[in-house]
Amino acid sequence: MEDKMAMVIFQPSGQRGEVPKGINLIEASRLLGVDIETLCGEKKVCGKCKVRIEEGRFEKYGIDSKKSHVSPWQEEEDKYIKAKEKESGYRLACVTNVEGDLLVFVPEESRAGKQVVSKAARDIEIEQNPAVKIYYVAVEGPSFEEPTGDFERICRGLEKEYGLSNLRIDIQTLRQLPTALRDGDWKVTVSVWMDQEVIRVRPGKVENHYGLAIDVGTTTVAGYFCNLTTMEVVDTVSLMNPQCKYGEDVMARITYHMTTPDGLKRMSNDIIEGLNWLIDQAVKGTYPPKKKKKKEKGEKGPAEYVEVPEEGKTYLRLTREDIEDITLGGNTAMHHILLQLNPEHMGLAPFPPVIHHSLDIRARDLNIDINPSSYVFVLPNEAGFVGADNVGVLIAEEPYKKDEIQLIIDIGTNGELVLGNKHKLISSSCATGPALEGAQLQFGMRAAPGAIERINIDPETHEVDYKVIGRDAWRKYSEAKDMKAKGICGSGILDVLAELYNAGIVMKSGVFNKDQKSDRYRKNPDTNQPEFVLAWADESSISKDIVITQKDVRQIQLAKGALYAGCKLMMRRMGMEKVDKVKIAGAFGTHVDREKALIMGLFPDCEIEKILSVGNAAGDGCRAALLNRDKRKEANWVSRNVEYIELTVEGDFETEFMEALQIPHMTDEFPHLEGIVPDEILHQK
Amino acid sequence: MEDKMAMVIFQPSGQRGEVPKGINLIEASRLLGVDIETLCGEKKVCGKCKVRIEEGRFEKYGIDSKKSHVSPWQEEEDKYIKAKEKESGYRLACVTNVEGDLLVFVPEESRAGKQVVSKAARDIEIEQNPAVKIYYVAVEGPSFEEPTGDFERICRGLEKEYGLSNLRIDIQTLRQLPTALRDGDWKVTVSVWMDQEVIRVRPGKVENHYGLAIDVGTTTVAGYFCNLTTMEVVDTVSLMNPQCKYGEDVMARITYHMTTPDGLKRMSNDIIEGLNWLIDQAVKGTYPPKKKKKKEKGEKGPAEYVEVPEEGKTYLRLTREDIEDITLGGNTAMHHILLQLNPEHMGLAPFPPVIHHSLDIRARDLNIDINPSSYVFVLPNEAGFVGADNVGVLIAEEPYKKDEIQLIIDIGTNGELVLGNKHKLISSSCATGPALEGAQLQFGMRAAPGAIERINIDPETHEVDYKVIGRDAWRKYSEAKDMKAKGICGSGILDVLAELYNAGIVMKSGVFNKDQKSDRYRKNPDTNQPEFVLAWADESSISKDIVITQKDVRQIQLAKGALYAGCKLMMRRMGMEKVDKVKIAGAFGTHVDREKALIMGLFPDCEIEKILSVGNAAGDGCRAALLNRDKRKEANWVSRNVEYIELTVEGDFETEFMEALQIPHMTDEFPHLEGIVPDEILHQK
Repeated sequence: MEDKMAMVIFQPSGQRGEVPKGINLIEASRLLGVDIETLCGEKKVCGKCKVRIEEGRFEKYGIDSKKSHVSPWQEEEDKYIKAKEKESGYRLACVTNVEGDLLVFVPEESRAGKQVVSKAARDIEIEQNPAVKIYYVAVEGPSFEEPTGDFERICRGLEKEYGLSNLRIDIQTLRQLPTALRDGDWKVTVSVWMDQEVIRVRPGKVENHYGLAIDVGTTTVAGYFCNLTTMEVVDTVSLMNPQCKYGEDVMARITYHMTTPDGLKRMSNDIIEGLNWLIDQAVKGTYPPKKKKKKEKGEKGPAEYVEVPEEGKTYLRLTREDIEDITLGGNTAMHHILLQLNPEHMGLAPFPPVIHHSLDIRARDLNIDINPSSYVFVLPNEAGFVGADNVGVLIAEEPYKKDEIQLIIDIGTNGELVLGNKHKLISSSCATGPALEGAQLQFGMRAAPGAIERINIDPETHEVDYKVIGRDAWRKYSEAKDMKAKGICGSGILDVLAELYNAGIVMKSGVFNKDQKSDRYRKNPDTNQPEFVLAWADESSISKDIVITQKDVRQIQLAKGALYAGCKLMMRRMGMEKVDKVKIAGAFGTHVDREKALIMGLFPDCEIEKILSVGNAAGDGCRAALLNRDKRKEANWVSRNVEYIELTVEGDFETEFMEALQIPHMTDEFPHLEGIVPDEILHQK
Repeated sequence: MEDKMAMVIFQPSGQRGEVPKGINLIEASRLLGVDIETLCGEKKVCGKCKVRIEEGRFEKYGIDSKKSHVSPWQEEEDKYIKAKEKESGYRLACVTNVEGDLLVFVPEESRAGKQVVSKAARDIEIEQNPAVKIYYVAVEGPSFEEPTGDFERICRGLEKEYGLSNLRIDIQTLRQLPTALRDGDWKVTVSVWMDQEVIRVRPGKVENHYGLAIDVGTTTVAGYFCNLTTMEVVDTVSLMNPQCKYGEDVMARITYHMTTPDGLKRMSNDIIEGLNWLIDQAVKGTYPPKKKKKKEKGEKGPAEYVEVPEEGKTYLRLTREDIEDITLGGNTAMHHILLQLNPEHMGLAPFPPVIHHSLDIRARDLNIDINPSSYVFVLPNEAGFVGADNVGVLIAEEPYKKDEIQLIIDIGTNGELVLGNKHKLISSSCATGPALEGAQLQFGMRAAPGAIERINIDPETHEVDYKVIGRDAWRKYSEAKDMKAKGICGSGILDVLAELYNAGIVMKSGVFNKDQKSDRYRKNPDTNQPEFVLAWADESSISKDIVITQKDVRQIQLAKGALYAGCKLMMRRMGMEKVDKVKIAGAFGTHVDREKALIMGLFPDCEIEKILSVGNAAGDGCRAALLNRDKRKEANWVSRNVEYIELTVEGDFETEFMEALQIPHMTDEFPHLEGIVPDEILHQK
């Protein structure tokens, strides 16, 4: 009988195990806990998952090197794997199936690095009015004259002291109530949700209560852990969206749902597990667990603060139950997948979501492990491709309260645009695609250590200076071997096009200038395509020249063209020639160089000073909804009062898009580039 | 190493298995699925759990008959087990621990029989206004002009057609929504709870929807399966409360919680499991499962009706999901235990419950397996010992809408009393104890086959005629051997005292008349106590004379005295000399002979025609709350507007109680006994 399992070992990590024969190497890597980059979600179009197969059986089975233990070569692989690489055993992991015992080497450029997340909390003004409030109440114990039940007893106290009436109580909290009342000698602190429902009762007087605002991005999940009493951000926590292993962008995830039984449930479980991990981080951060002191006799429940004399510090001592409220934002696909709502229809024209309105869902119904009676508030969606994350941006930035015309661009894996002021707001989304985030480019990567994030090119010498994530010193102040560059990430990608253009290396059309003086410009011998070397092999950790190719430039042009055309069409729809302010949001937005963004023509012309980076505004909106319940109403209002425009059905989208592919040159459209871009470049024909 | 397990075999059932050494025989019987009667909940006071130990190892282990395999004799056992029985190996199962392999014989009188439940639905008038209503709505599919989300789309339809606004939707239903809409081609039937929340969406037009009203009694659980569209009772279903194995009355259950870790959770799980079984019975009853036809291609979901041509019948074809609403009533202890609310405090003076107000709890939060988004409505409690069941009685009988003064007596394991009219209502409870239900009497038993339920005693001959449950023919029309009497149940117990009194066998004081002519009267040789034989050994299935002892008569007197004194004190509190109507509720109430109830003095004097049996009024109240949401408000109102009186703290309770122990004789208090009870009896000194 043939064995149905095969032993697979991944190098250099050494992770190993038996996997069912017939699965592909990406699936095998997941089973064995190895991270292989799969930007396209196994759609065979990114070529990022190259691995080297080293055939052979292991001692346990004896040697049998004549038989191939992988499935045959696929046509698609020719596009990404050169003849020479093929010879030495390179394959795409996504099309290569396990047929027998294998030793697989994962080269560094194929390893999924841990993304560097930078979503710190901004100072934004929020009025204090959280959905969950705490009330201290002291009542008389029961007697024969007054044998009223426990719940009615505290309700009477809450009504008398605070005017709260018609309260209800969740069954889980009701179960705690008798003990809390008696432990606290009929004095308790009651947490009330929306002045409607008792969701927690703690003995005695407690001063503080806590909540978490979470922005679920396609790539990054960021959480703001807030004290709901003092309004302070206690901590910010983040993680990679664990769904990244199913594909980088929303369409890859939707495809995964449509092609995999239980795929939706699996992705939902993964993000929920991620949120629970995030909650754990938030709570753990408040008090070092190894210092946890033992509960002393007679002590009633854990004290909120604990002193650590040897450190001279006082720490918060919190548990998961101390989180009493959560707000959640995310694009419509992340929203649907997290809630296990079918995302299939929102992925197809005319892109209807399952729901727009916000939701109050009991945390336990989502398996989110906090105070068991608490609710999770899920922000509303605007449309299929403008989701709750954009609503978050809106309630943080409040363009609907301003006179000035704002253009807000949220660049995540998808581009979301809002334009208008207090009289009218319209929104749209455009398929920037993942190019601006590093996918689809030959050396594109996520914002992980080794990624080039800043680039300057000397217009005279065409020498390249750059900075990588994980190292403060720029190239020109470093030894080559210390740079350890691996690829180029989002912010570097924006820089590179502006710099190549500014230095005259590429023309306004995006074509490389053939009249080059630098040895960094060359034609690739294999593809016969022009390319420009950003970092030489000895500066890299992958022993290869890191280049930007003609094809890469085209990809960036497609992305920026989509964004620019979107902005342009929205302005036309609103009958506008110019905007008063451009706000760039998104994790991407915090890193982008606004001058370079304007040079490459990411959006229509605007005074440089009026271009603002607003960081993770979506997360700020979640935080606003956490700390001020009125923001929740505002969110629902704005989600139904922003007019969503589907750009691709506008008649002149194609024309605008084609024009927008060009890098801006001197036309009436970009007066503000004058003096920033050299004259001979700006006025080129 | 000593073996920690022992093999136990129970006879005559033959059930066997290994159990941990050290547990008692009741626990062992539960583990092995053997029913042993434990009326007192293992408090060693009922003596009902007698078993005969037959020591010895089994073949597997070899013979070792010199060593005792049970724990030593306990003092308490002397009270219940005679010297001769002790010799032949009799023990009380609740105090006898397993120390080695055992063979145990369970005599028939110690076996817990399956109770005969008779809680049919009465015709009561209920206005149709269920909490859950269904609405058919047809909408347009999404387009680029109108790409609104699925939920908002049906909301717009529901608002336009039915004026429903501000609806919310449960996450579980939201997950079904996209499929239901597309399966139904944008025509769906929507179930809405309280005009507030969408709890189910089914494709196409559906005519009916269903609910279940459940009365959770201490002993019996009764369910009314109702069509919420037509108001019909589709079926009535019932089961024994599975918690009976932890003790017969509420105090035994509360004690079990207080003495057993996880006891509350265990009892709660048992009743929830019971409710799920009940739900299953309700649904199964609608369509024979073996006839289920296969789903044909193109068929969308199961049809509501299915024809079975060979039977010429049309059956309902329902699933658990078709139950969209549940109402629950029960006494405060059953209420608390089911909901896992600590019942400890309501069992101690001043008896405060955890909550009075009704609760809307998501069915899934109680692990009740119906339509997942549906709610369970739990009726409110009046007080610690007058619970949601009594509120059920009140909203069914509506004494607060009448001019006449009603006395409503609900006799379950506890006695609950309500007195008053539309001007004022007071309630109380009295510890009738389980005597009226069969416990504590020597031959008392539950209403199970073999129980004597009706008794007539000839005043001349003192011959006894009786009827047993499970046999239509009375004694005098039967052969002795066909009667198979086993004991005496609640309704028989009421009969027996009235009949013994009427025939002059017992005096008004409750003492046996020593001047007896019947050979049925005798002194028990062991106890030297007078007793009266109701059925001779050859008429029984236990080969024993079934007798009523002097001590039994005392027990009955104590119970009826408590009830009478309670009524009397309530009337005094209200300043009343007489009542206009007496209503007897409870399963017990449907069987009781009102003339005999008056003769024995269960309640103050009243015209015989004004004594009414109202059956399971508590269950009727649950049904009213299921079919008419206004009854839910009424329930909350009445639960807080009936004044609860704690009788035991009234100064003259003791005096009244002592007087009430007597069987009524001719005083001014019982004018209506004239002509019913023979003169010489009624006027005895």
